Amino acid sequence: YRMKAEIITIGDEILIGQVTDTNSAWIARALNGIGVEIECITAIPDQPEAIKNALDAAANRTDLVMITGGLGPTKDDITKKTLAGYFGSKLVRNEAAVKKIKEFLTLRGVELSNLNLDQAMLPDNCIPVPNRYGTASGMWFKKNGKDFIAMPGVPYEMKSMLTDHILPELQKQFDLPVIIHRTIITQGIPESHLARLLSDFEQQLPEEIRLAYLPSPGLVRLRLSIIGREIRKTEQMIQKALYELMTLIPEYISGLEDESIEKVIAALLVEKGTTLATAESCTGGNIAHLITSVPGSSRYFVGAVVAYSNDIKERILGVKKETIEKHGAVSEPVVKEMASGIRNLYQSDYAIATSGIAGPDGGSVEKPVGTTWIAVASACQIKAEKYLFGDLRATNIQKASVTALNMLRKLIQSEK
Amino acid sequence: YRMKAEIITIGDEILIGQVTDTNSAWIARALNGIGVEIECITAIPDQPEAIKNALDAAANRTDLVMITGGLGPTKDDITKKTLAGYFGSKLVRNEAAVKKIKEFLTLRGVELSNLNLDQAMLPDNCIPVPNRYGTASGMWFKKNGKDFIAMPGVPYEMKSMLTDHILPELQKQFDLPVIIHRTIITQGIPESHLARLLSDFEQQLPEEIRLAYLPSPGLVRLRLSIIGREIRKTEQMIQKALYELMTLIPEYISGLEDESIEKVIAALLVEKGTTLATAESCTGGNIAHLITSVPGSSRYFVGAVVAYSNDIKERILGVKKETIEKHGAVSEPVVKEMASGIRNLYQSDYAIATSGIAGPDGGSVEKPVGTTWIAVASACQIKAEKYLFGDLRATNIQKASVTALNMLRKLIQSEK
Repeated sequence: YRMKAEIITIGDEILIGQVTDTNSAWIARALNGIGVEIECITAIPDQPEAIKNALDAAANRTDLVMITGGLGPTKDDITKKTLAGYFGSKLVRNEAAVKKIKEFLTLRGVELSNLNLDQAMLPDNCIPVPNRYGTASGMWFKKNGKDFIAMPGVPYEMKSMLTDHILPELQKQFDLPVIIHRTIITQGIPESHLARLLSDFEQQLPEEIRLAYLPSPGLVRLRLSIIGREIRKTEQMIQKALYELMTLIPEYISGLEDESIEKVIAALLVEKGTTLATAESCTGGNIAHLITSVPGSSRYFVGAVVAYSNDIKERILGVKKETIEKHGAVSEPVVKEMASGIRNLYQSDYAIATSGIAGPDGGSVEKPVGTTWIAVASACQIKAEKYLFGDLRATNIQKASVTALNMLRKLIQSEK
Repeated sequence: YRMKAEIITIGDEILIGQVTDTNSAWIARALNGIGVEIECITAIPDQPEAIKNALDAAANRTDLVMITGGLGPTKDDITKKTLAGYFGSKLVRNEAAVKKIKEFLTLRGVELSNLNLDQAMLPDNCIPVPNRYGTASGMWFKKNGKDFIAMPGVPYEMKSMLTDHILPELQKQFDLPVIIHRTIITQGIPESHLARLLSDFEQQLPEEIRLAYLPSPGLVRLRLSIIGREIRKTEQMIQKALYELMTLIPEYISGLEDESIEKVIAALLVEKGTTLATAESCTGGNIAHLITSVPGSSRYFVGAVVAYSNDIKERILGVKKETIEKHGAVSEPVVKEMASGIRNLYQSDYAIATSGIAGPDGGSVEKPVGTTWIAVASACQIKAEKYLFGDLRATNIQKASVTALNMLRKLIQSEK
């Protein structure tokens, strides 16, 4: 049995490009994780005709239709009436939903309005799906042997609804297959050359397994995907293919796509019971932000000094005035002094320091925009590297942050 | 004349959620900017049947079909054959394309492969669209009075193709209307209450103008959209509606879009020639990151201390040990001492301080996860507020950051 699904996003904000639809990718990953394949992702405006047509088309080609958006207090009018009409039901006041909405608003000290009460009007033939983080209820319909589930578009409301209620229920109701993806990141070889090296491998793959190429700036991802019945056997098959693939191109593999670098760092520091602090100039606190986005980071992250001025670099981090005068703030000696400075000040085991020209201003002929010095330090060593990223500010900040964390990973692993 | 368009993205990586489709939002904004309305955005797998069905459906409901993806050297086989079949043409070697590909690869020191040469095989009835940054040519087809344009999926290749060639050509060929969106950002009032305040305004809007609500953590965006014929008159109409809207809810408006709160703060600080520093516990450097994402922020941002441990709060920021022992780290006195501490240490005019329980651990009955104290300080005053956000770490960090910046905005404006 294979279950096909379509994701429909309702909202003018998607169609004018004001909001990027990130929900669909999240839902696709979540459904794939329990063995559901996505056939199509569709975004449509808040209009009854568009909604009805999209539901018809989706029901025609798939078994499960996931709908997001159109359920906020100012919007649910059109969506709910259209859904009620489509599924031949009428809107009735759901007392359990009224109670939940009242509790939800009271807890947050928000006065109840008629629009909130309207959110408790639900089609009488749907199963309501609880919303832990908002006032819009989810709705699960069944029609002609197909399932239709409408969820709010606010990402964290939708995510908890899906994770806590919908996925477990789908797994209970259906005997779903196993879908696994494994992705290798390659660097230093163009897509067309990789394809030539791997053409025999690709032709000999079992038919359950597919290989895909995903190029992006500076790297090519290679993804193996499999659909199987039994989890252990399916895992073994893809693992075997993955291993064969890796032995064919070992010199081009830079990593597996799995865990973010901040989680890798977290595991390394927790394992050794060590601590980290950052001294950030060009990254402006973004490294600290990435580190502290990991739950439990207070166990190993002491804190940061964002030193956006030379004065702070000198007074707080103890960088010598002469060093800045002689070499400039974006230089190897300064970034090294920043790294030792923060290690001493915050008494951490490891330290990261950054100093660069994020742009768009501040570049020169010798130090163009994108020039970045990064240092990582432990009790035994300080390493510094210079990078030349590019001319986009946001990209420079992100690249410098990820590169710095990766340098720290290598430093920690070299001391194991 | 109104032109409707559909965007079709081809690629399994979108349907398994490995890649978020950011191209479509970008294309939607670009097309809206020249007066084209987007009816539907669709993502489909790399399969001939799916591609043909999507083209049929799109041609049925729109005038212009924009296709991205499926044109890389390892993928274009399926897409190009399907397109050639759909438009009744055959693939022929395009010598101009061969020449371009050879030049492109030579410049980058990459050896030409047969797969690259295959990229020069193009349908004989399309107009090729030059690709400045890659080897895949774009293809413009016309059929039954509709336009179909296929572009590569690599974002920077697609963007330059659209900007340099396709948009100017569409403007030349069609007499397009004017579409304008204006968005106000509101804070401190729930969506349902805003809707009540604005219901009369909404009912009296001219029919060309639509109002939409877009809630996200900590704020609600209000968008006015208009379609008109004549640019000056259309701009005047929406500007008038925008002004009316702003006068109805002045106390809740935190800025205009394209004018994020960090840009509003930037303008206020630059205008007064003043400076800012932050002392961050629960926000972990994210406020500094938001501030420094604005180009030129070194003019007014001195830096930050991320104090993830009590030791740093005491030793660096000068928070008194007794204050923490008596009130706990998440408390009004501590966050106020952090704010004065960073102001003194960094010698800035203004300061922001945060201390809260971002979660998922660390909560208690009196101080549940989400409890956050925020302080803002100037030379004359310190203001602190307590917030109860929720139990999602990433959302708490984002809400606390945006709320803190908004508190600072109000403080600066109150001292004007």
